[in-house]
Amino acid sequence: MSALAELKSYVAEMVELQAAAAIAHWDARTYMPERGVETRAKVVGRLSRLAFERVVSPKFGELLAAAEKELPNASEAERAMVRMGKRDHERARAIPPDFYQRFVELCTKAESVWEKAKAEANFALFRPYLAEIVDMVREMARLIGYKEHPYDALLEEYEPGMTTREVAGILGGLRERLVPFVRELQERGTPPPPIPAGRYRLPSQKALCTEVLKAIGYDFSAGRLDESAHPFTIGLGPGDTRVTNRYNEAEPFSALYGALHEGGHALYDQGIPPELYWMGLAGGASYGIHESQSRFWENQIGRSLAFWEFFKPRLARRFRGFARTSPETIFRMVNKVEPSLIRVEADEVTYNLHICLRFELEVELLEGRLKVEDLPERWNAAMKAYLGVVPPDDAKGVLQDVHWSGGAFGYFPSYALGNLYAAQFMEKLQEAQPNLWDEVRKGQFQNVLSWLRQNIHRYGRMYFPEELCQKVTGEKLSPEPFLRYLREKYALVYRL
Amino acid sequence: MSALAELKSYVAEMVELQAAAAIAHWDARTYMPERGVETRAKVVGRLSRLAFERVVSPKFGELLAAAEKELPNASEAERAMVRMGKRDHERARAIPPDFYQRFVELCTKAESVWEKAKAEANFALFRPYLAEIVDMVREMARLIGYKEHPYDALLEEYEPGMTTREVAGILGGLRERLVPFVRELQERGTPPPPIPAGRYRLPSQKALCTEVLKAIGYDFSAGRLDESAHPFTIGLGPGDTRVTNRYNEAEPFSALYGALHEGGHALYDQGIPPELYWMGLAGGASYGIHESQSRFWENQIGRSLAFWEFFKPRLARRFRGFARTSPETIFRMVNKVEPSLIRVEADEVTYNLHICLRFELEVELLEGRLKVEDLPERWNAAMKAYLGVVPPDDAKGVLQDVHWSGGAFGYFPSYALGNLYAAQFMEKLQEAQPNLWDEVRKGQFQNVLSWLRQNIHRYGRMYFPEELCQKVTGEKLSPEPFLRYLREKYALVYRL
Repeated sequence: MSALAELKSYVAEMVELQAAAAIAHWDARTYMPERGVETRAKVVGRLSRLAFERVVSPKFGELLAAAEKELPNASEAERAMVRMGKRDHERARAIPPDFYQRFVELCTKAESVWEKAKAEANFALFRPYLAEIVDMVREMARLIGYKEHPYDALLEEYEPGMTTREVAGILGGLRERLVPFVRELQERGTPPPPIPAGRYRLPSQKALCTEVLKAIGYDFSAGRLDESAHPFTIGLGPGDTRVTNRYNEAEPFSALYGALHEGGHALYDQGIPPELYWMGLAGGASYGIHESQSRFWENQIGRSLAFWEFFKPRLARRFRGFARTSPETIFRMVNKVEPSLIRVEADEVTYNLHICLRFELEVELLEGRLKVEDLPERWNAAMKAYLGVVPPDDAKGVLQDVHWSGGAFGYFPSYALGNLYAAQFMEKLQEAQPNLWDEVRKGQFQNVLSWLRQNIHRYGRMYFPEELCQKVTGEKLSPEPFLRYLREKYALVYRL
Repeated sequence: MSALAELKSYVAEMVELQAAAAIAHWDARTYMPERGVETRAKVVGRLSRLAFERVVSPKFGELLAAAEKELPNASEAERAMVRMGKRDHERARAIPPDFYQRFVELCTKAESVWEKAKAEANFALFRPYLAEIVDMVREMARLIGYKEHPYDALLEEYEPGMTTREVAGILGGLRERLVPFVRELQERGTPPPPIPAGRYRLPSQKALCTEVLKAIGYDFSAGRLDESAHPFTIGLGPGDTRVTNRYNEAEPFSALYGALHEGGHALYDQGIPPELYWMGLAGGASYGIHESQSRFWENQIGRSLAFWEFFKPRLARRFRGFARTSPETIFRMVNKVEPSLIRVEADEVTYNLHICLRFELEVELLEGRLKVEDLPERWNAAMKAYLGVVPPDDAKGVLQDVHWSGGAFGYFPSYALGNLYAAQFMEKLQEAQPNLWDEVRKGQFQNVLSWLRQNIHRYGRMYFPEELCQKVTGEKLSPEPFLRYLREKYALVYRL
């Protein structure tokens, strides 16, 4: 067997273990009976440990080194497999197992303390845990290593190849323009009408979500739509990419956009060639690129006027109250901009400001410039400056997100980058397909999906996000396309 | 760490891998999208391989040997863990991996050929595959080794400790008495009325199944009831034992008895202490003992007159057509005896004759006395002799069961033994609880379940079936209690 073939079979085994863990994970969040929790934790823990042992194993390093010698005659995918394998191997080996174990235990504890602290709006309870997490995360950055900034080492987990300096430039530029833009909409715009109050029956909402997923090309013979407390998408391997959603009887749009969002992630996953999956090259180029696909379908397509020209009759068929509402009115309703306290409920304009805030605080914590005890005050001041609102308590402020209690520093930027990638990709797509919006108006999404498949999905995780962005758009990531998109769209929504 | 502790952690890892495979398996048979088949086969294959590697590993042998020295101070469960571990280890090592691999491949192929052969009622198609399977099974028996009879080596897989001679004695005695008994019922008895034709709505059937499972004590917070093509029960570890069922709109009883049957398996599983599970001692004492639990609830309890005195009003609440039917009439309806061609559709009297036939043919094939080419003729002759019916074609005859195509020789006896164990246990239970039937009449099953928990479930797989039977009933397994049970019950059903 060639070294490459041997490496492939080694990687396939890791991937099979990850797939097994994914099945167990999906089940845990959908159908598992309540008393199954403890057993399931052991099973998932074992599978993760077995997969991790294979990533850190010196054997993997040897196989990678041997395969590297065969690269001159290898395919592009094989070269990517070796490059990504080395990256994963080195990152995993940088953290001593004991240190990692302590970190996992701390975070497990911290998550349950955070839950309590949030329920009681009591930051003091969570503070010592967060302080310890920040200390360990700083040490982790040191262990992993970095060229410029300790935060680079963390960012690398979610946006491989992206630096803190770049993110700061992009998000900084975005923030400077968004803050006055939000003010302008509020001061000079005509706000959209509210969503009519009512009881929107769940079976109709579910049917509508299935309909929209089918319309955009989600393959139900290779997936499912189920319910869970928090919507998510999970790939269980080629031929099996599942989405979940949640429903709110008071209004039908959050579930619909939940379905489009998860559907976007799922289309990415369904579009990755099976052979890449078994080479450990599924999962997307980065968290940001993955988010670009969900945001693309949710916002660029799903919150467009053309989409509502297509979808309004379908909505009205299930919910008669919309029978005489125009597509344009629905388009405006679902694009209401309102500075608010909670990130996950934010509209697409103010959303990114929530991310700018978190990124800045994370960087300051990493640098040691900001102390954990000063975090709530700093948070509230930034909310005031960026969004003009101040949390009445820490539950609605610094305690709102789970990420920090889980040690996931470096994750937040991906959300904003996803929005920016989506807009930059859309500009390119519009150039390539001048009939795009006519097709969307007719509910024809095949060409859109083919373009995404052709330019993004089919590469899986072969490229770093920066390389992929360059390949697709010919340029580096920039906030400009996103800002142009907002200006144009919200001039319509707010009748500027 | 003591050798016992080390062994425990080694076994727990195997069990965790088996649990992961079980989750993947359950999902494959309930919710998996159709295109997920290929990926799932890889994942389940990998998990099974990893678990199997641990069973055959010399490391396991060393751990077992070391632990054995600590047995004088060990608990009963620990001693059982070592005994069963040695048994599993030795059995698994007896078959060379290459041979086993060839066998698995042959059976995979044979199963799909069998499907086609059955659909076309064409035994000739399946014959060469079955001939090869029989050859390999004979070789396997030789490799595993046996004292008296090659079939012993196969039986051991399903009924540890049971010999061919014993089974032949038990089933032979049973057959001699059943054949005339069936004739007597047909000739001298008054047959029960038929089940009224109608359309029995599935949601009501499902609700009824949930109701009956709750009544007998199945814990839904540690399990689920779903649909699948073939009903099954699967343990995913402590706190998670699931059952599935199928439904037939034309009559409500097959689903109800499906639920009671699977519920019986599930109660066994839910009654096994978690600590035994992690020691590899869940799963039941044998296939026969497991079947005794399903048959106990399905037939001994669920097909009793007392049960219908309790359950008839519940049935009538869902299906009004039964409002004026007496419990006694339903009791008779669901106990109709009718010699028929298909094992899985047989009543509890004729069922065992189907098993006697299969057991005899398997033994003859193993001994080489019967050639595969002569199998259909021999099958049909035995059907005529035992049941008085002859299959019109091989699809309804020798091709009806999946077992042989999967290489599962030695499995069939467990079905009949299960019926016998159930009756023998029931006699003991009636002695211990004279109020039993009064309680069943009131729908009170707690004492029945406690007795099963106390005497059977709590031991998991600690004992061989013979030891357990002796422990519970003070005697070896015998067909007498079952025959007494039939005589008494069917005198009522057939008004003899």
